[in-house]
Amino acid sequence: MYNQIAGKRLPRIEALSDGVFSIAMTFLVFNLKDPLAATPATEEALLGALWSIAPNISSFFLSFMTLGIFWTGHSTQFDYLERSDRNLYWLNLFFLMFVALLPFTTSILGGHIDNKVAVILYWLNILALGLALLLHWNYAYRKKLLALDETNAMQVHKAIRQRIIYAQAFYGLGAALCFVHPFLSLVVIFAIQLNYAFGIFSRK
Amino acid sequence: MYNQIAGKRLPRIEALSDGVFSIAMTFLVFNLKDPLAATPATEEALLGALWSIAPNISSFFLSFMTLGIFWTGHSTQFDYLERSDRNLYWLNLFFLMFVALLPFTTSILGGHIDNKVAVILYWLNILALGLALLLHWNYAYRKKLLALDETNAMQVHKAIRQRIIYAQAFYGLGAALCFVHPFLSLVVIFAIQLNYAFGIFSRK
Amino acid sequence: MYNQIAGKRLPRIEALSDGVFSIAMTFLVFNLKDPLAATPATEEALLGALWSIAPNISSFFLSFMTLGIFWTGHSTQFDYLERSDRNLYWLNLFFLMFVALLPFTTSILGGHIDNKVAVILYWLNILALGLALLLHWNYAYRKKLLALDETNAMQVHKAIRQRIIYAQAFYGLGAALCFVHPFLSLVVIFAIQLNYAFGIFSRK
Amino acid sequence: MYNQIAGKRLPRIEALSDGVFSIAMTFLVFNLKDPLAATPATEEALLGALWSIAPNISSFFLSFMTLGIFWTGHSTQFDYLERSDRNLYWLNLFFLMFVALLPFTTSILGGHIDNKVAVILYWLNILALGLALLLHWNYAYRKKLLALDETNAMQVHKAIRQRIIYAQAFYGLGAALCFVHPFLSLVVIFAIQLNYAFGIFSRK
Repeated sequence: MYNQIAGKRLPRIEALSDGVFSIAMTFLVFNLKDPLAATPATEEALLGALWSIAPNISSFFLSFMTLGIFWTGHSTQFDYLERSDRNLYWLNLFFLMFVALLPFTTSILGGHIDNKVAVILYWLNILALGLALLLHWNYAYRKKLLALDETNAMQVHKAIRQRIIYAQAFYGLGAALCFVHPFLSLVVIFAIQLNYAFGIFSRK
Repeated sequence: MYNQIAGKRLPRIEALSDGVFSIAMTFLVFNLKDPLAATPATEEALLGALWSIAPNISSFFLSFMTLGIFWTGHSTQFDYLERSDRNLYWLNLFFLMFVALLPFTTSILGGHIDNKVAVILYWLNILALGLALLLHWNYAYRKKLLALDETNAMQVHKAIRQRIIYAQAFYGLGAALCFVHPFLSLVVIFAIQLNYAFGIFSRK
Repeated sequence: MYNQIAGKRLPRIEALSDGVFSIAMTFLVFNLKDPLAATPATEEALLGALWSIAPNISSFFLSFMTLGIFWTGHSTQFDYLERSDRNLYWLNLFFLMFVALLPFTTSILGGHIDNKVAVILYWLNILALGLALLLHWNYAYRKKLLALDETNAMQVHKAIRQRIIYAQAFYGLGAALCFVHPFLSLVVIFAIQLNYAFGIFSRK
Repeated sequence: MYNQIAGKRLPRIEALSDGVFSIAMTFLVFNLKDPLAATPATEEALLGALWSIAPNISSFFLSFMTLGIFWTGHSTQFDYLERSDRNLYWLNLFFLMFVALLPFTTSILGGHIDNKVAVILYWLNILALGLALLLHWNYAYRKKLLALDETNAMQVHKAIRQRIIYAQAFYGLGAALCFVHPFLSLVVIFAIQLNYAFGIFSRK
């Protein structure tokens, strides 16, 4: 009986998700530490210190965009959701688990930006986010938890699925480039994200 | 007079709860620290460092599931709540107190995963969460703050109570196993949580 | 013109407030640090370490109750608010400033629990919270931003004002006791909070 | 197709924004650290320690006001927003990126309060916030995403634009004063903020 009555409150899962996203986004700032904290420093020394944490600052922006992209995707799915059940709750919670993990994989990346292991770990986090989001949509679609009329349904379903699959294919390619050079990999992943943020090369 | 006018805003207590849950969930990531932070490291060294914090990573997932389970339970109760009073506010605040405490007991567990004291402390936190949630429901039921029609009321009441009591019985058994071996205890607790997350062995 | 169009969105100020409260509540846990982090420890050593941070654990509970009390008070005021203007926005923001500051004054208290300066600093934070909440209510009442009918208005106004003034008088007395002994002071403040949480000695 | 269906959920972007703002506001407290943590200290020593972090405490208040001002501005824009699209989502996300960054630039400022680089970095953060907010409004206005009738539209548009541009002009002047003395710069920026918070010299 409990499993039938649990997990039906759609606004709550959305509120929790916005909470986890906004916290994970703001947590990224913790990877930015003043290397000269509490030490008197000349202007040159402070500029140098800021320059020395450039990899951390770059990965702050990279991860903020990552979270922004997945948050937009999550928000789009909820625009169609009409009902929920406890399985959907849990698929969403697994998705949020990997949202909450991103500040950690970001800190590893910021600290070891030329290290293949760090790039692959970061990519695995992105992959987990994509898979969880895809499972979440597929489940909602299959269980008819969506508010979609017949004519529209297939089109929206395909658009959402393809977006996730294409993006993950690009991310996978980007990550594979780390075997050429870790830095190249990050540049390509960043370019993919800029494309998705600004919607430049996407089919309208 | 003040006690009659205070504590009646149901959406606020729900918003606060989602806030505390989402923050506690995301805070768990702070127990994951790069052991080689800011030190240049070879790929092997970084893999080794990640492996060395495997207990912390495991307890991150364990605690995320713990919070997910109690958040689902909390959300289910609010699906039936119709009104609130200040006592219910405070029962909820005590529940949230132990939600906020979980990142601490998790960090103790992650740092001392083979230590009976750490396992028992973690279990005490789970026990406090269960008790607070049970008190919260019982109070709401007794004070008729719920929106339940007669026919349904007893059934829902029993389902929600039994879920909490059974789960706590299992957790208690799992915790007791730490006197055999702390690690065994954690494996069993984790298995209980997987069961509740996926609803495998629960009576439909 | 700008000052007339700004600050009118009541749900936003409430959402921001719940955010700041839930974060400040959960932040209190950061004052709890495992003194033996990442060091292998016997069961006795771990128990001893937990005991050594008992002042921090106590001040975690103390401050969670402080925040719970002021959050309940804040929520009660918003139950009557009908409109907002930008001055009310800013009175609320100043209130939140001191909510956000409490984890800091709590950490000072937890680290120096037998120090008069720590107790007085903590009390100043409570005093600032009380004053800001009183100003917030008085402004809303004077500017007729409340949804109160004539017959009710005076009664609610008096109940809310008296609650804040009486509570602050008790806190002030409690704080003054630190000149006898800092610890006595904290025990009395804690007793006052338990009274307000459980509503034992309050006039119904 | 995906770009047409994404980014339409106005309450979500507002919830995420309130989340990021409330977290960034509360995060500022992490720049306040007890210099004598866990060391027994006399009353004089503790007062001295608190005095030694006065620059950090000042920048806590400064940044809380900064965030309060931009949050009020953000809230005012949303009072007129009627619809959203994915570009508006992303303009908002870029704005939030610089909200999330403020605790970092604040910590640099608190640690090096007499350093030109720290003041300019802080000012750049304020500038980025202002620009993002201006772009956000201009886009919404141009794309007719606002709920404004003809007679009102121009007036509101001008009021919101002018507020941002004037404020940024003042901030720019204040920042330029750091070439006279960094501290003078901060005093002027703080005075500008007090003026905006209390609305003293602003045209009604």
